[in-house]
Amino acid sequence: MARTLTVSIDAMGGDAGPAVVVSALLRSAQRHPDVRFLLHGEEGQLKDLLARHPRLKDKVSVRHAPGRKPSHVLRRGRDTSMWHCIQSVKIGDADVAVSAGNTGALMAVSMFNLGIIDGISRPAIASIWPTLKGQTVVLDCGANVTATDEQLVDFAVMGEAFAHAILGLERPRVGLLNVGAEEQKGNDAVRGAAAILRGSSLPIAFHGFIEGDDITKGTVDVVVTDGFTGNIALKTAEGTAKLIVQFMRQSLKRSLFGRLGAIIASGALNTLRRKLDPRASNGGIFLGLGGVVVKSHGGTDAIGFASALDMAIDMARADINARITADRRSIAAKAAGERAAEL
Amino acid sequence: MARTLTVSIDAMGGDAGPAVVVSALLRSAQRHPDVRFLLHGEEGQLKDLLARHPRLKDKVSVRHAPGRKPSHVLRRGRDTSMWHCIQSVKIGDADVAVSAGNTGALMAVSMFNLGIIDGISRPAIASIWPTLKGQTVVLDCGANVTATDEQLVDFAVMGEAFAHAILGLERPRVGLLNVGAEEQKGNDAVRGAAAILRGSSLPIAFHGFIEGDDITKGTVDVVVTDGFTGNIALKTAEGTAKLIVQFMRQSLKRSLFGRLGAIIASGALNTLRRKLDPRASNGGIFLGLGGVVVKSHGGTDAIGFASALDMAIDMARADINARITADRRSIAAKAAGERAAEL
Repeated sequence: MARTLTVSIDAMGGDAGPAVVVSALLRSAQRHPDVRFLLHGEEGQLKDLLARHPRLKDKVSVRHAPGRKPSHVLRRGRDTSMWHCIQSVKIGDADVAVSAGNTGALMAVSMFNLGIIDGISRPAIASIWPTLKGQTVVLDCGANVTATDEQLVDFAVMGEAFAHAILGLERPRVGLLNVGAEEQKGNDAVRGAAAILRGSSLPIAFHGFIEGDDITKGTVDVVVTDGFTGNIALKTAEGTAKLIVQFMRQSLKRSLFGRLGAIIASGALNTLRRKLDPRASNGGIFLGLGGVVVKSHGGTDAIGFASALDMAIDMARADINARITADRRSIAAKAAGERAAEL
Repeated sequence: MARTLTVSIDAMGGDAGPAVVVSALLRSAQRHPDVRFLLHGEEGQLKDLLARHPRLKDKVSVRHAPGRKPSHVLRRGRDTSMWHCIQSVKIGDADVAVSAGNTGALMAVSMFNLGIIDGISRPAIASIWPTLKGQTVVLDCGANVTATDEQLVDFAVMGEAFAHAILGLERPRVGLLNVGAEEQKGNDAVRGAAAILRGSSLPIAFHGFIEGDDITKGTVDVVVTDGFTGNIALKTAEGTAKLIVQFMRQSLKRSLFGRLGAIIASGALNTLRRKLDPRASNGGIFLGLGGVVVKSHGGTDAIGFASALDMAIDMARADINARITADRRSIAAKAAGERAAEL
């Protein structure tokens, strides 16, 4: 894309405040020299921070918005940095929005302002997981606490379009997360969604049911689940990773040989640390909205926020909503045809 | 307990056949010199295996049962090693049963023969997780794909009794797995269960909602969830652990210093390996039945099967069903009292 891409940023959303955002901009501006940034937040504070970095001068604009607490978005309505951040995408001043604010508030503000893609009933939050084979997209990671069979099909369509556009997979394999691989396993929603996906004539490579350990095995490229299970699976995996790293640290520290070995292998252990760094794939990707929104982890640092900006820029450059709309329409048409044939 | 404890074993249930069971018996007989074992399976095969180990002679009896495939239990009814294994508990020939057969079949056979504890509507499968602080019991790990608020309360009561009796905690803290800690978060079942547990005058220390990463943090001693989410969380954690161990192996192998450091720290890395060994806490514990049943992982080896035998023996020695019955009755009485007061 030749034209200048603009990223709208809620500079007040994260736990650590706007200093982290400005540090992240330094990294991002270097990686993406052709991208512009629109910061929403306390004007004085932001201008002071930016004044220290002259090379950001031409790339970053500031728009004043007071307040920072996520609860303000609901209480004070439009007068928050989060609201203005999303508004900029709505009115066309920016191509994509990034915020580290409260997930629920951000989803509500995004739905209100940007609407939902035609044919999709609920948006979802996707996240990228490392696997033995590379990367896998998991959705929904918490936008909805329940999901019907039709909503799970929506998630499959959105996840497939994302894996195609962002992970560059020609024919991503899609799996439904369940308690067993057999057809009769699971609750009504997953069995219903599997029946629809098996019957669809879409270019979706539906693998069938997968189990929890298939996520990190890389059995499929897209893992579809409801937001309750997805959120718990995501946080359980994060907790498990932290536990093992902690166990490893304890084991190595406990003996002289352990400490010595760790020093000698420090290069390899640093590689491992980078591979497990949650900041590398920071960001919940909101799918199904009439515009692109990326949620950064609230407690992340400049490296993590810069990863969220990377993801937003990739998303803005790939027009995945067109594919989602076309696929969803094709499934709906097929279902309508089958219902008509049954009558 | 002075009297001899007898463990009934389905010797044909595991993927690797009865040889693994007999090897596990050698370990278990040494650890528990006062325990007797009752093996159900192909008599000729079992007697051949046992003949090689004279010191098992006085401790192990064999009862012939043909067949080994889990599907046989449903097709051939009573004529399987799994059925006979559970029957021995029912008729009082054994105190506890262990099988590595199919989970669904084992639960069905157990419910049919042993019944469910008075006041509990559905049994659950509990498993023990390592945490930063020690161990945590998670249930349900897959006995039921859905759970109502009342059923989640059942799981809380059963998990609390288990943590008290087996983990030796005076006042185990119980948490409900959810997508956030705030009171309004989650689906109807978890919110309803929280309301009942908050209102109960039981000796249950109800912590409230916890998130996925709280499991391995050890925020609570008992994690309550439905079998769909619990099974997926358990397998996701197992998959994550395998992924990280694989990443660690790759990182260390890739460089000379990595390989050298790993050799020097091999003692520490072996400690870590033992800490992460899933065989150490092998076994799904069936709670809520009229007898004690432990499900060993189907693909485990002698070390893993011996762990399942350890758990079964611990369970048989602690009478947790009395506590479950009393607690459940007390919650039900309180709820009935409140309903009467409302009229």
